[in-house]
Amino acid sequence: MSSESSTLAGVEAYVFDVFGTVVDWYGSVTRALEKAAPDGYATEDWGAFAKEWRRGYGEYTRRVANGGQGSNNADVMHREILDSMLASERWKHLAPLWDDAKREELVQFWHKLNGWPDSSKGLRAMKQKAIIGTLSNGNVRLLVDMAKYADLPWDVVFSGELLGSYKPNPKVYLGALHHLDVPPEKCAMVAAHIYDLRAAASHGMKTVYVRRPTEDSDLQAHVKSKQDGGEVDVVVDSFEEIAALML
Amino acid sequence: MSSESSTLAGVEAYVFDVFGTVVDWYGSVTRALEKAAPDGYATEDWGAFAKEWRRGYGEYTRRVANGGQGSNNADVMHREILDSMLASERWKHLAPLWDDAKREELVQFWHKLNGWPDSSKGLRAMKQKAIIGTLSNGNVRLLVDMAKYADLPWDVVFSGELLGSYKPNPKVYLGALHHLDVPPEKCAMVAAHIYDLRAAASHGMKTVYVRRPTEDSDLQAHVKSKQDGGEVDVVVDSFEEIAALML
Repeated sequence: MSSESSTLAGVEAYVFDVFGTVVDWYGSVTRALEKAAPDGYATEDWGAFAKEWRRGYGEYTRRVANGGQGSNNADVMHREILDSMLASERWKHLAPLWDDAKREELVQFWHKLNGWPDSSKGLRAMKQKAIIGTLSNGNVRLLVDMAKYADLPWDVVFSGELLGSYKPNPKVYLGALHHLDVPPEKCAMVAAHIYDLRAAASHGMKTVYVRRPTEDSDLQAHVKSKQDGGEVDVVVDSFEEIAALML
Repeated sequence: MSSESSTLAGVEAYVFDVFGTVVDWYGSVTRALEKAAPDGYATEDWGAFAKEWRRGYGEYTRRVANGGQGSNNADVMHREILDSMLASERWKHLAPLWDDAKREELVQFWHKLNGWPDSSKGLRAMKQKAIIGTLSNGNVRLLVDMAKYADLPWDVVFSGELLGSYKPNPKVYLGALHHLDVPPEKCAMVAAHIYDLRAAASHGMKTVYVRRPTEDSDLQAHVKSKQDGGEVDVVVDSFEEIAALML
């Protein structure tokens, strides 16, 4: 048995970060924006637009996780960030093109994101051996729509809204452990973001770091497993690799 | 289009009662008790034991739904009821046979219940066309274990514990509608218990009554669809029948 396999022995449940870890928000939203772009705006940097939108989401959820004000619904949040982007110097030329109805439509782009190539197949293999669930800051409907769209066979859908805060607030991790009725060492957090795994580890959960091309860009190369002198339990490049490590 | 089909047109999400509606608790628990029975107790009326246990659960959840004291975890609840049954005149002769560890094992019987013959296939067909989820008084882990055991492909698992009370408390129905982000008329409650559908209807939800051999025994024959002069939207004998009515 490899040391990484033995680390995961006895893990009954795997909970996943979703945006970036399971689905490719960057590619999906960029392509959707390109298709939705009005005539004459094809050369706009839609990748930069998607990135700024996503960065706004990160800042927003961190603020709320730390006790600040804000919606606990990802749709409302995505809309507020979109509106403030369209009021900014960088993007205000786009504001007149998109009325209220169109903006609501753009917000729905975040419900239809493609999985990474290994996501659906890897989750299916993992599901044979353990409970798999989301542990995401997205709201329930968004996660359910995404699961149907990208064929993600979750056993259970946990969201920040359902558990009363956003990651990395302890409520979210402890809430999942409570409802899964598992001790923390029998539950692994799977994420492409080291901040998420650090929070999970602080509650005694196991940690699986997944390298994804669009996430943790500056940090990724430095994340190592404990057996390689690092801080996480396991580092992988796909969910199929996790399934192979499960006993 | 039949009138029942048109009633379900536009329904985006179906939420299901689980015990009795999706799984055959009576047959499953009775058989498990028979197998677990100590030598010399094969002639005990295990069906009556299972029924009393289940009735205790119903009384317990109603008490909590009405604001009374009690655990919001179905395992804890099943254990408390079991202990009180084993202290009663009717069953006290069994008490010395089952120590603490054995009683915990018996409580786990409620995690491994068989679906009705149409459950798995019917849910799979429905899932192609709409969101399907649990709306049960069971706790999340119990519902997840049961889904894996009986092959129930839920998109989302809602439980009383997750939503802060038990059915028929309004919190449970309104919580599911909120997290599914649907207006009540686009969400249908599916149950083999008229009390559950009456509560759902009072919040504007659609109602699908499923006739199951062990449930609502005295009431079942009197439940009729609105088109037949009754109070529920649709009456069926299987989930496959619901799938056939979905557009």
